[in-house]
Amino acid sequence: MATDSNKFQAIISHCKEYGFIFPSSEIYDGLGAVYDYGQWGSELKKNIKDYWWMSMTRMYENIVGIDAAIFMHPTTWKASGHVDNFSDPMIDNKDSKKRYRVDHLLEAKADELEQQGQKEQAELLLKQMDSLLANDDFDGLKTLIENNKIVCAVSGTANWTEVRQFNLMFSTEFGAVSDEDGDNIVYLRPETAQGIFVNFLNVQKTGRMKIPFGIAQIGKAFRNEIVARQFIFRMREFEQMEMQFFIRPGTQKQWYEYWKEERMKWHLSLGIPADQYRFHDHVKLAHYADAACDIEFNFPIGFKEVEGIHSRTDFDLKNHQEYSRKKMQYFDNDIDEATGKPYGNYIPYVVETSIGVDRTVMMVLSHAYEEQDLSTAEKQDSRVVLKFPAKLAPIKLAILPLVKKDGLPEIARQIMDECKPHFKCFYEEKDTIGKRYRRMDAIGTPFCITVDHQTKEDNMVTIRYRDTMQQERVPVAKVKEIILQSLV
Amino acid sequence: MATDSNKFQAIISHCKEYGFIFPSSEIYDGLGAVYDYGQWGSELKKNIKDYWWMSMTRMYENIVGIDAAIFMHPTTWKASGHVDNFSDPMIDNKDSKKRYRVDHLLEAKADELEQQGQKEQAELLLKQMDSLLANDDFDGLKTLIENNKIVCAVSGTANWTEVRQFNLMFSTEFGAVSDEDGDNIVYLRPETAQGIFVNFLNVQKTGRMKIPFGIAQIGKAFRNEIVARQFIFRMREFEQMEMQFFIRPGTQKQWYEYWKEERMKWHLSLGIPADQYRFHDHVKLAHYADAACDIEFNFPIGFKEVEGIHSRTDFDLKNHQEYSRKKMQYFDNDIDEATGKPYGNYIPYVVETSIGVDRTVMMVLSHAYEEQDLSTAEKQDSRVVLKFPAKLAPIKLAILPLVKKDGLPEIARQIMDECKPHFKCFYEEKDTIGKRYRRMDAIGTPFCITVDHQTKEDNMVTIRYRDTMQQERVPVAKVKEIILQSLV
Repeated sequence: MATDSNKFQAIISHCKEYGFIFPSSEIYDGLGAVYDYGQWGSELKKNIKDYWWMSMTRMYENIVGIDAAIFMHPTTWKASGHVDNFSDPMIDNKDSKKRYRVDHLLEAKADELEQQGQKEQAELLLKQMDSLLANDDFDGLKTLIENNKIVCAVSGTANWTEVRQFNLMFSTEFGAVSDEDGDNIVYLRPETAQGIFVNFLNVQKTGRMKIPFGIAQIGKAFRNEIVARQFIFRMREFEQMEMQFFIRPGTQKQWYEYWKEERMKWHLSLGIPADQYRFHDHVKLAHYADAACDIEFNFPIGFKEVEGIHSRTDFDLKNHQEYSRKKMQYFDNDIDEATGKPYGNYIPYVVETSIGVDRTVMMVLSHAYEEQDLSTAEKQDSRVVLKFPAKLAPIKLAILPLVKKDGLPEIARQIMDECKPHFKCFYEEKDTIGKRYRRMDAIGTPFCITVDHQTKEDNMVTIRYRDTMQQERVPVAKVKEIILQSLV
Repeated sequence: MATDSNKFQAIISHCKEYGFIFPSSEIYDGLGAVYDYGQWGSELKKNIKDYWWMSMTRMYENIVGIDAAIFMHPTTWKASGHVDNFSDPMIDNKDSKKRYRVDHLLEAKADELEQQGQKEQAELLLKQMDSLLANDDFDGLKTLIENNKIVCAVSGTANWTEVRQFNLMFSTEFGAVSDEDGDNIVYLRPETAQGIFVNFLNVQKTGRMKIPFGIAQIGKAFRNEIVARQFIFRMREFEQMEMQFFIRPGTQKQWYEYWKEERMKWHLSLGIPADQYRFHDHVKLAHYADAACDIEFNFPIGFKEVEGIHSRTDFDLKNHQEYSRKKMQYFDNDIDEATGKPYGNYIPYVVETSIGVDRTVMMVLSHAYEEQDLSTAEKQDSRVVLKFPAKLAPIKLAILPLVKKDGLPEIARQIMDECKPHFKCFYEEKDTIGKRYRRMDAIGTPFCITVDHQTKEDNMVTIRYRDTMQQERVPVAKVKEIILQSLV
């Protein structure tokens, strides 16, 4: 049995062995912090995305979806603050070509000093660093690194470049214009939220939306993380499910609380118990927020953020108004009881819910993964089972003829043909039934049915439940309904 | 009524006005050849993707899906030939900063000469160009441009840069390694197919797939098109739905014909008549193909490619084997009747089906769009209606209380609550019923039901059909079933 500390590694191995998640371009030894979803991982991920989309854009009548491009006009990222603020001072070692965050290098040195009993020097170093960082004094930071004789862990040398700001956005050259003046630099979006903000007016007007209303989006985002790791938890290419809820200024506290509750309900609807979650309120707020918290899940690597709820004020719309010179306003003809007049024109406030698709996949996998000891007095036995909720399982139903003859495959195929337009089915006729059950357990298939010789007489099949491993006979005619019921 | 020549413009305007497709980052005056899908366009696009995914990965038992990352190891694109071959010689005008394809500039000049009656000079020019292009003689090409006194259409000057190869792949710097040696250049994939090829071994082994089998994928791809235009037909960021079908060498002709037929059936299942399609066989084949054709649709701008079927031989797997030194082989233990022995090890051949998501959206929109004259002797009237198949429509059912009082909204809400977990519904209580119907026509909602005063007595509602505009009374209890039936 895996302990908590190695459960994480066991899940990563299982994901690779059973076609959930592979390192990207693995035949070329992979690409750092990028992963590919395999045949069952892609179905799991799609089911999660579809469930979120359905929950947000179908169950809430005042939320609509959009699908904005990854490429956006570069001014978007000036207005959002990402060009100026989404960066860290970095330094490269010329020998190893390894790049470091300057604050990480200096903090590591301070730790080292403290462990050597030089507590005062350590504190002084940190104080100097903070002051230089606050003043963007890059020359000073380099001198501080040199004076403290900090060397690269790989090359062992102090052969450093200048300190430079390193933006976490990926950039590329765009279009048919020459590159000498840099006008054609386009970024890969580091978040999907701005695709919603720049479309606020278009959606509000063409969709005749009335405040309060939301715009939801699922899509890829990209960040050139320096320290990218922990499997699919922090990747350079990842996917977000974000919803921006547009509200009247002054009502943000109430909506912030509302969305905290609603989103937690969504998590619990995945069948994960409440004690596996906790809220973590942000004390230090981002520049755009007046309240923010994370929903943290109890991953095998500890409680970590899976979703964020942020009261973003009118920061984004106001900045886009300033940069685009387009009025980002809404006319509210509801009556303000205090004045007896309509609320009139304002820039809406925004409460955002932002959840990582890949982190949700990892959460669902972590919660579903179980190694079970099934040994009896007679024989040792065990299984790995993924206890996905049926609605998220890659395959809903496996259809297994007991043997490959006697007309059993034909009956199985009939059931297959009836069921497969309605949900994902899997047909298999090789190996013993026991082996086939275990393979279905390992990829989280909630139901298996076996067609045997008796089926030809009574038109019944054996249904086998993944979690309890119990079996019972049910009429062939009822199979489709049983599965459909489980998906609601 | 729009004529064919202006129908295309009418559709583009309609898409913007009714929340289907907006120019990307429109508040910043857009980004060339990039578009955002609005509230109804995103639903239409998702329905198309879901229908393709369901058709390919659920209805065919021997096809599985994957979801590989956009970022791939750069060697992928050396093996695929994109680094060397996916480029054109380009030249920039230093004054206008406008970039041109060299062959386009020279061909335009030849046209000009011919129109001036200088046919021989024109032919000579083209002959010289072909020879220089064949030899990658960039200096020669520049001299040819200069000697022919070709000027930039924007600046009017002949102030040209050197001729350079311009690759259509977007590139970016990746990771925490300094950039001086260019080792960290990563491309945005120009096609999704390679994500399937590099995962061939992983999927075949972990999925225990037996040849013939397919791997399907939906995802974004990026090409830095010099001439990108025609709305969403040729974009720099676009989405593909590709399926690679792995087969035994020698069977490619049969499978190529099979997939041509199957894919055409899929198109017809969208409710579009056969005379709107045609096959276009490629005479000049790409370097990787031994047979290839397009499925062309009759767009308002003429018959154009919406899908390609390509017999790709073992070109890709063989090259990945060479570059990665991993054996891209399959052991086939089926018996070869000619020898009486198993077929044994081989590199599979591949037949590919590759369809553009955005082009399919444009196809479905073009076919659905209709301007109808509804004038009678008494009054002039018209409507724009999008006759989407119900399964692709953004909204399936609009639920409309006749008036905003007398308990009608309450009944409407009950129907809404029953239906909305099953399909996308829309509730609206403002404006006359006629206006509400027309708005639903314009976004392609196939069914509207009206709750009126009689509903309180007989528990029936009026259902109104989009295409015929006919209305009939149906029991409230039957509404959900009617809509669900239409979606099969």
